[in-house]
Amino acid sequence: MLIVGERINSSLSGVAEAIAARDEAFIQGLARRQAEAGVHFLEVNAASDPGEEPDNLEWLVGTVQKAVDLPLCLDSASPPAVEVALAVHRGRAIVNSITGEPGRAEGLLPLVKKYGCQVVGLVVGPEGVPRSAAERLSNARGLVEVVKGYGIPLDDLYLDPGVLPVSVDGEVGGEVLQALRDIKSKLGVKVILGVSNISFGLPRRRLLNRTFLAAAMALGLDAAILDPLDRQLMATVTAARALRGEDEYCAAYLAAYRQGRLDPPPRGG
Amino acid sequence: MLIVGERINSSLSGVAEAIAARDEAFIQGLARRQAEAGVHFLEVNAASDPGEEPDNLEWLVGTVQKAVDLPLCLDSASPPAVEVALAVHRGRAIVNSITGEPGRAEGLLPLVKKYGCQVVGLVVGPEGVPRSAAERLSNARGLVEVVKGYGIPLDDLYLDPGVLPVSVDGEVGGEVLQALRDIKSKLGVKVILGVSNISFGLPRRRLLNRTFLAAAMALGLDAAILDPLDRQLMATVTAARALRGEDEYCAAYLAAYRQGRLDPPPRGG
Repeated sequence: MLIVGERINSSLSGVAEAIAARDEAFIQGLARRQAEAGVHFLEVNAASDPGEEPDNLEWLVGTVQKAVDLPLCLDSASPPAVEVALAVHRGRAIVNSITGEPGRAEGLLPLVKKYGCQVVGLVVGPEGVPRSAAERLSNARGLVEVVKGYGIPLDDLYLDPGVLPVSVDGEVGGEVLQALRDIKSKLGVKVILGVSNISFGLPRRRLLNRTFLAAAMALGLDAAILDPLDRQLMATVTAARALRGEDEYCAAYLAAYRQGRLDPPPRGG
Repeated sequence: MLIVGERINSSLSGVAEAIAARDEAFIQGLARRQAEAGVHFLEVNAASDPGEEPDNLEWLVGTVQKAVDLPLCLDSASPPAVEVALAVHRGRAIVNSITGEPGRAEGLLPLVKKYGCQVVGLVVGPEGVPRSAAERLSNARGLVEVVKGYGIPLDDLYLDPGVLPVSVDGEVGGEVLQALRDIKSKLGVKVILGVSNISFGLPRRRLLNRTFLAAAMALGLDAAILDPLDRQLMATVTAARALRGEDEYCAAYLAAYRQGRLDPPPRGG
């Protein structure tokens, strides 16, 4: 399973300020710490005043890739921002995300095609995030058709079923996991989830996040956008990989144990 | 989901000695602590010299039920032991377990029928625990027919897909979860799992146990035999219940939080 580190996001504490101040050390510290935790991609989000987002995202991409040798997941709905970011990006990026909202796919997919990168399709329609698994699948089908229309290989697409907080929608866990299974079995497309949203508004968010991720991984989740600095979450990933048969002789699990990466956190951690 | 506390088992430290010494305080302490942790059943296992098991199990049932007002899950393959235990048991017990091994169901099911209790069917055949989901389902079908043959309602049956250690069989996680889904969807019978076996032979067993339980609960697990004194495991149960839509407005999750039951453990705990 592909892991995308979520911490360089202008909605998280300190990041917007660091972007505005062009604080390379702050951003590169976050990048290095996530890279050391074992991610495959780093998400970067510079959402801000639309007029400033292209400059900010371009700077963010360059700053992060000076520090770590990882490809990035560009979290932006702005074609001008994504275009300047892709122009300076090294390696194969992921663009996150197209949706079923008018104009969004049309603005971003030509760039995905031009740069040969990967893309996340978030199954949001004009009415927002769907509630049922069936609506998620229906929106997913629509996105698949749009992506095909641009001649982009479906292997470069990750569909995101759209995680709502369980505090808002008690059925979201079951519906998202059903959508995950349906998208994989009926459309044959990979599934990505941003897990942290599930716990929004509740205490002990990390407990909910890792419990949800364990379930999604057992159902074949292909990629997760998560906080790799959450040690217990990463330990859950290691355990879930062994449990889903991706870790022969539990070798990676045992290595993580020897490195202390499966240790319980200090109280309050 | 039904929770069966697993700690009063003669294979666990101190229990065989307490049974041999008729140490009521030790056994009743284990019973009370598990009851306080929120279980619905307590498993009791007095496996020992076959000649002694009936006396031991009868004493164990009486001793536990003097301390707590809970029904028990009688973990025994011995019809004489189960018979004396059921004769003194208050409430509706679970007999754990019948299997496809010759003679075992024939010895136990008449007692299940006579006492109107519930029964676990472990999908073990004469060749032991199956490896694939398909074999598990096939053995499960056989057990369903046997149970039906005794006129026992299928609603009183829990099928256990048989958890092997992931250290022995890297595919066990996926196969057991597939069997869980198949048994529920194709046979319409409830599924029970003993989760601890998954982690046998590996370090940080509790991490694997709770990761596996989170996955099984998301797939509709009906009952789990587990260690209710493992606080992080019970916190996972609380989170997984919310995530599978069994906890309206996350009320039980929030109550557990206020009671400190979702707190991280002390380091090393």
